[in-house]
Amino acid sequence: MSEYAERMSIAKGSPIRAMAKLMADPELISFAGGNPAPEAFPIGDLSELSKQVLLEKGARILQYGETEGLSEFKESALEHIIRPRGVKAEPGNLLTLTGSVQGFDLLSKVFIDKGDVVLAESASFMGALQAFQLMQCNLAGVEMDDEGVIIEDLEKKMAELHPKIFYCIPTFQNPTGKTLSAGRREKIAKLAAKYDVIVLEDDPYCDLRYRGSAEPPIKTFDEAGKVVFFNSFSKILAPGLRLGLVVAEEEIIMRMALCKQSAVGFPNGLAEAMADAYLRKNLLPAQIRRIVPIYGERCDAMAEGIRKYFPEGCRFVLPDGGMFIWVELPGDPEKYDMQAIQLRALQEIKVAFIPGASFSTIPGRYKNTLRLNFSAAPREKIGTGLEKLGSLLKEYTN
Amino acid sequence: MSEYAERMSIAKGSPIRAMAKLMADPELISFAGGNPAPEAFPIGDLSELSKQVLLEKGARILQYGETEGLSEFKESALEHIIRPRGVKAEPGNLLTLTGSVQGFDLLSKVFIDKGDVVLAESASFMGALQAFQLMQCNLAGVEMDDEGVIIEDLEKKMAELHPKIFYCIPTFQNPTGKTLSAGRREKIAKLAAKYDVIVLEDDPYCDLRYRGSAEPPIKTFDEAGKVVFFNSFSKILAPGLRLGLVVAEEEIIMRMALCKQSAVGFPNGLAEAMADAYLRKNLLPAQIRRIVPIYGERCDAMAEGIRKYFPEGCRFVLPDGGMFIWVELPGDPEKYDMQAIQLRALQEIKVAFIPGASFSTIPGRYKNTLRLNFSAAPREKIGTGLEKLGSLLKEYTN
Repeated sequence: MSEYAERMSIAKGSPIRAMAKLMADPELISFAGGNPAPEAFPIGDLSELSKQVLLEKGARILQYGETEGLSEFKESALEHIIRPRGVKAEPGNLLTLTGSVQGFDLLSKVFIDKGDVVLAESASFMGALQAFQLMQCNLAGVEMDDEGVIIEDLEKKMAELHPKIFYCIPTFQNPTGKTLSAGRREKIAKLAAKYDVIVLEDDPYCDLRYRGSAEPPIKTFDEAGKVVFFNSFSKILAPGLRLGLVVAEEEIIMRMALCKQSAVGFPNGLAEAMADAYLRKNLLPAQIRRIVPIYGERCDAMAEGIRKYFPEGCRFVLPDGGMFIWVELPGDPEKYDMQAIQLRALQEIKVAFIPGASFSTIPGRYKNTLRLNFSAAPREKIGTGLEKLGSLLKEYTN
Repeated sequence: MSEYAERMSIAKGSPIRAMAKLMADPELISFAGGNPAPEAFPIGDLSELSKQVLLEKGARILQYGETEGLSEFKESALEHIIRPRGVKAEPGNLLTLTGSVQGFDLLSKVFIDKGDVVLAESASFMGALQAFQLMQCNLAGVEMDDEGVIIEDLEKKMAELHPKIFYCIPTFQNPTGKTLSAGRREKIAKLAAKYDVIVLEDDPYCDLRYRGSAEPPIKTFDEAGKVVFFNSFSKILAPGLRLGLVVAEEEIIMRMALCKQSAVGFPNGLAEAMADAYLRKNLLPAQIRRIVPIYGERCDAMAEGIRKYFPEGCRFVLPDGGMFIWVELPGDPEKYDMQAIQLRALQEIKVAFIPGASFSTIPGRYKNTLRLNFSAAPREKIGTGLEKLGSLLKEYTN
């Protein structure tokens, strides 16, 4: 066999996808993935809009398009998504993405040479980090407390490791559900300037807030042009449309666009025209008002179920939004074999979750933790699933 | 500014895209890009299908999907596109692509380490090669005659340069319009086995045949599992849907899928469901019967125009299909400054074409050549444009 590239030894499949077959059981209660609730998709509106935009401008949106994104969609995204968050941006600062995961790929191509360091929160979204690892970066983790990444440790690691990029999910973090305060956000922007590090601010969950008030994006504190801001339509509209946005300095956007030419060429014109029409009809605010209570109730049901059914001594921080609750089991982390527990849960009680260690960027961490997703399962199943899972976990804590 | 990755010094924008602004003039007659005719898009069918598939299976196709592609689309693509070409494949041999350009990116990640050699025809599609160059390959060209790549030179370069990949467009080649005989195709498959080289067979134009009969894909001669076969919906349905296919050994597909996870995550469910419905309703054969005469007439009109208006001594091979005619101007190649001619054509006569040297993989080649696209301009404009362009070219040949 012709030899594979060296990077292929690094690439691992997502642990979530690897279990796809076990998880395809229709009786399974899944707290594993990060899927939106199907009832959150505005199917009626999208089906009407798909037909309408094809009839109105099919000749253009079915043709080869602009690498940077459909021009009207770029305009409406700036007006309805980016600028309302306080992020200043002109069309030259915006690139549309085939899902934000594309942004990870493009940014890693623009910045990462083999051996360059990428920092991430001590537990982070491996889907993003895998793109950086394919460009053969070295990954290092930054410590977190209950309020997210610890600024002192971030500064220490920026100074010592000279990273190219710090990857950060500031709001309802995946996997921990934690949210950074405005104060920490401002400090991150300052450190990026001081140590000349790109901050990749990945903010797909920010609209799913169930309590408290919005924090400004790190990008709003970015006087040095070091912050690259990602947003996504996957959580608020539908992942299947594959729509994301990146805002950054024009020089960075230009280079990402160059790489996009050689990655997907140009975006899906139909999906972008549909999202553009959706934004221009101002349907998004009502959509968000409709889905936030669905997810908020599920979040509360999950918190209640954990308190009620999980072993004594379990610890979690109730998230203010997003899709995940991160649970720490009591006692010595070394005593838990979470992969074995995960497999037993799948096989014996048909409940799925992800061991926290799967998200760890610091070797050996988080052996006693689980990430639980509350967005995909209906409320009543959340209780049932947590009751079963709690009983199983008690076998290990008692 | 944080330092960009080394690969960014290699990346160049497409010369076609770079002139996008000059070419946006609505009066321009463009023989430059490779756009399908807008009247070739089945807009009515696609708009009905978009609405229908969203109403029927919106909850699934708007959700996170399978990295390998929507399962029913994989089935219908095998049945209606891949197997009718004589290519044997099971679902595990197939990966769907966000346009075939995504395949270039994925394959380059799977196989190319910095410094690895990629072979291509002496004039080739730079959009593909740029993806390989982003993985820092060394590019080398293989000589061509009127029937395409010269087998003896291919063998010599495989033996001398130990390439990882030979990139080949066997049918109605871009940019030359040439088609490889079955004999040469079989030899390429044998050389791939002998020298352990991956052959990337890129076959997006094969359904656009205006004369003669179909040649079997190189993949049908691939006993050693070295051929990676690409197909695309861009030329027969619509580029804006971003749909391509790759067929290869399961081991290669698995690794490409792994890279796809970190590139776009998973495909656009709506686009794949629309194409699936289109194939299952068996609409593609009639679509191809409808568009082939449109393009065939334009091809003939262009050949006629070149004969009538271009300088004496011009040479071209009438293509049997596809979208391009490749013209060689007479005399010493060094006397032509085709970039200057291109600019004058744009500014003075509002006619666009691409200098052949832009496609060259052998330095210094093709200085006296042009690639002319005949698919995008209506028939009457082809004559007008060639008359103007012919007059301009005569200033240089006389």
